[in-house]
Amino acid sequence: MEGEPTLQLRVFDLNCWAIRYLSKRRQERVQLIGDTLRREGFDLVLLQEVWSEQDYSDLKVKLGGCYPFSHYFRSGVIGSGLCVFSRFPILDTLLYQYSLNGYPYMLQHGDWFCGKSVGLSRSRAGASMGVLASRPLFPPSSCQLHAEYCREKDAYLPHRLVQAWELAQFIRHTSKAADVVVLGGDLNMHPEDVGIRLLRGWTGLRDAFAEATRFEGCEDGCTLVPNNCFTVNSELLPFPLGIRIDYILYKAVSSFTVKCEELKTTTGTAPGTDIPFSDHEAVMATLHIRRQGQAAGDTLATAEPTLADVVTEARTEVGVGLRAARRQRYSAGRMAVLALLLLLLQAAAVLGALAGLAAEQPFPKLSFSLLAFFALGVLLLATGLHLFHTMEVKMLQGTEEQMRMALRALQERP
Amino acid sequence: MEGEPTLQLRVFDLNCWAIRYLSKRRQERVQLIGDTLRREGFDLVLLQEVWSEQDYSDLKVKLGGCYPFSHYFRSGVIGSGLCVFSRFPILDTLLYQYSLNGYPYMLQHGDWFCGKSVGLSRSRAGASMGVLASRPLFPPSSCQLHAEYCREKDAYLPHRLVQAWELAQFIRHTSKAADVVVLGGDLNMHPEDVGIRLLRGWTGLRDAFAEATRFEGCEDGCTLVPNNCFTVNSELLPFPLGIRIDYILYKAVSSFTVKCEELKTTTGTAPGTDIPFSDHEAVMATLHIRRQGQAAGDTLATAEPTLADVVTEARTEVGVGLRAARRQRYSAGRMAVLALLLLLLQAAAVLGALAGLAAEQPFPKLSFSLLAFFALGVLLLATGLHLFHTMEVKMLQGTEEQMRMALRALQERP
Repeated sequence: MEGEPTLQLRVFDLNCWAIRYLSKRRQERVQLIGDTLRREGFDLVLLQEVWSEQDYSDLKVKLGGCYPFSHYFRSGVIGSGLCVFSRFPILDTLLYQYSLNGYPYMLQHGDWFCGKSVGLSRSRAGASMGVLASRPLFPPSSCQLHAEYCREKDAYLPHRLVQAWELAQFIRHTSKAADVVVLGGDLNMHPEDVGIRLLRGWTGLRDAFAEATRFEGCEDGCTLVPNNCFTVNSELLPFPLGIRIDYILYKAVSSFTVKCEELKTTTGTAPGTDIPFSDHEAVMATLHIRRQGQAAGDTLATAEPTLADVVTEARTEVGVGLRAARRQRYSAGRMAVLALLLLLLQAAAVLGALAGLAAEQPFPKLSFSLLAFFALGVLLLATGLHLFHTMEVKMLQGTEEQMRMALRALQERP
Repeated sequence: MEGEPTLQLRVFDLNCWAIRYLSKRRQERVQLIGDTLRREGFDLVLLQEVWSEQDYSDLKVKLGGCYPFSHYFRSGVIGSGLCVFSRFPILDTLLYQYSLNGYPYMLQHGDWFCGKSVGLSRSRAGASMGVLASRPLFPPSSCQLHAEYCREKDAYLPHRLVQAWELAQFIRHTSKAADVVVLGGDLNMHPEDVGIRLLRGWTGLRDAFAEATRFEGCEDGCTLVPNNCFTVNSELLPFPLGIRIDYILYKAVSSFTVKCEELKTTTGTAPGTDIPFSDHEAVMATLHIRRQGQAAGDTLATAEPTLADVVTEARTEVGVGLRAARRQRYSAGRMAVLALLLLLLQAAAVLGALAGLAAEQPFPKLSFSLLAFFALGVLLLATGLHLFHTMEVKMLQGTEEQMRMALRALQERP
């Protein structure tokens, strides 16, 4: 950055809601997003929910001129849906998959099958940058907002906190290699939620909305708003203004300072069309990065006693989840044992019949074999669930222990 | 490290082979390992294959006096089997799970179900240390050594390379936060294998065995040797001296230098008993860490043209794996479609019979329903396999692309 004291970095973040066959007017919207990105010429573009690799390739072709560097993070069966376009060279990438991501049997939420990762790419533009895109935390907003079902009794909260913790840990461990860290994504959490407070407190990341000198866009910076024609309004009833769940967060790691000059969100339909880009609003930040005289310590954002409270709160919730997971593991195990007993009983009956203990064939063959198949199915399913909940217990335990370690470290600090 | 120019770090690494119900004389050996560790007083102990959490807890109790800090990395159904004991405070930990780890249907190798991670813990002892324990790469040595089956035609090589690459990337992205990085583990690769050359070349890690001033132990530093009573000798036939697959690797990141003064392996039975610690030999290194005047650049170990060759070689192998995975995905998909067709045919027959098209019941009920269950089973299995291989294709593609990016970066360097 010699001879150029301040670097201006324009960042664009959007949850594109581009699910093949499911998202409304997907191709049209992806084209629209591409056109806008080409016209506006941002420095960094972080997209989520680009589930179709074809959509990514189309965008890549269209944006090749102004964003010569890009990366699509592949993972899982469906993919991570994350991609990054950049005006600056992408030097290196790393994908981190969250260890917990909901329940495979909650098919209606679908999060278990996809989107369980954070993608890190490194760029250099004067300052070296660690750029992260994430859409980790579920359930998708459509459920998360349902007042009775989710906000009041959020069965996913422990998983959400494990992910927030893993995201924070991943950022802590990888950010030392960068001067500036930028995280953009649909974090599926409200600003005051414990997960966001944990992420911000434990990493020192700043919220561009809270820090911005100028703001323009939806009221309160909301990114899921009732007057977007793609949102399901009934689910936003408890929040008449909408909610803010898409973020751009940032921090300076070494001898740099970062300031958010301006934050914008999109509002209403895209210029010249009758539809918005997505069911989420895009977030656009203008960051000013300046080299400082001396290295700034890797400060935590929150005063430490407060941070300790946040970690304690999160740990309590993880503990609640741990107890629930243990109960479910036990139930699944009991079900598997019962199914096994039924199968053994049937086997004994068959053997008995074969040995001639029963004079005549006591059961109708068809229903007998149907029952056996049923028992076998239950056995397999219950065993699978038992294994799944065993894994869940392990990860929750692991996170709780890490949080305990963090609390001890916070308390021992001079 | 003021007033103490050189820090001596004694590191112990062992694949403990402590699988409950399966490993011979497990409890006795774990006790033996604990006794030795307590007596010898190392600074850092990296253990793998401690699958039973009870064994870890027992070790923790026994070693609490001389290794006040420890961490057990929880993951997966069975766990990662990784743990670290340390004389220095463990400040923070992070677990990274490899994205590919063999095939769920290769039950005899079992790697898919466990051990797919690298654990990172951070300590501070004058220099800040990133300490990694890993047992990533499969198949377990018992197969890996089988001459015809694995060395000659190693179907796992692409997965092995994905893991080696991910391990290297993880180290590159996290090591900036440390002064010194130490990696210990059973890497299940021979020193000349492309995976090890890739790992060493891409991270700049040095091999303690190759660098040690003094060496004492099994010939050529082998850690799986024929005269260990727990190894399966028939599998070591092509290697009369044994093989070296357990490593201690290290590097200095910032203004430090690290030198390996001494490397030892265990040989024969443990003192005072008739059994060795494990089916692997332990590796023990004495590292001397010294602060340097100026910061050393984060150098790559290998000269860059050679490194480019290694990455190219690895990329070619990953490409071979990618084509195989695509073929398997196609076969599984075709099988699923056939099973679905059979089910549809049966459904049509049933509907036909119900509609009275066939005058009499044309099929015996029992075999008809058994066939339906069989088709359903095949459908489920083939669909599962198809999804699995889809994921495999994605991860191999992702790795190949990252390697391509790395090659471009290597070529563009001045």
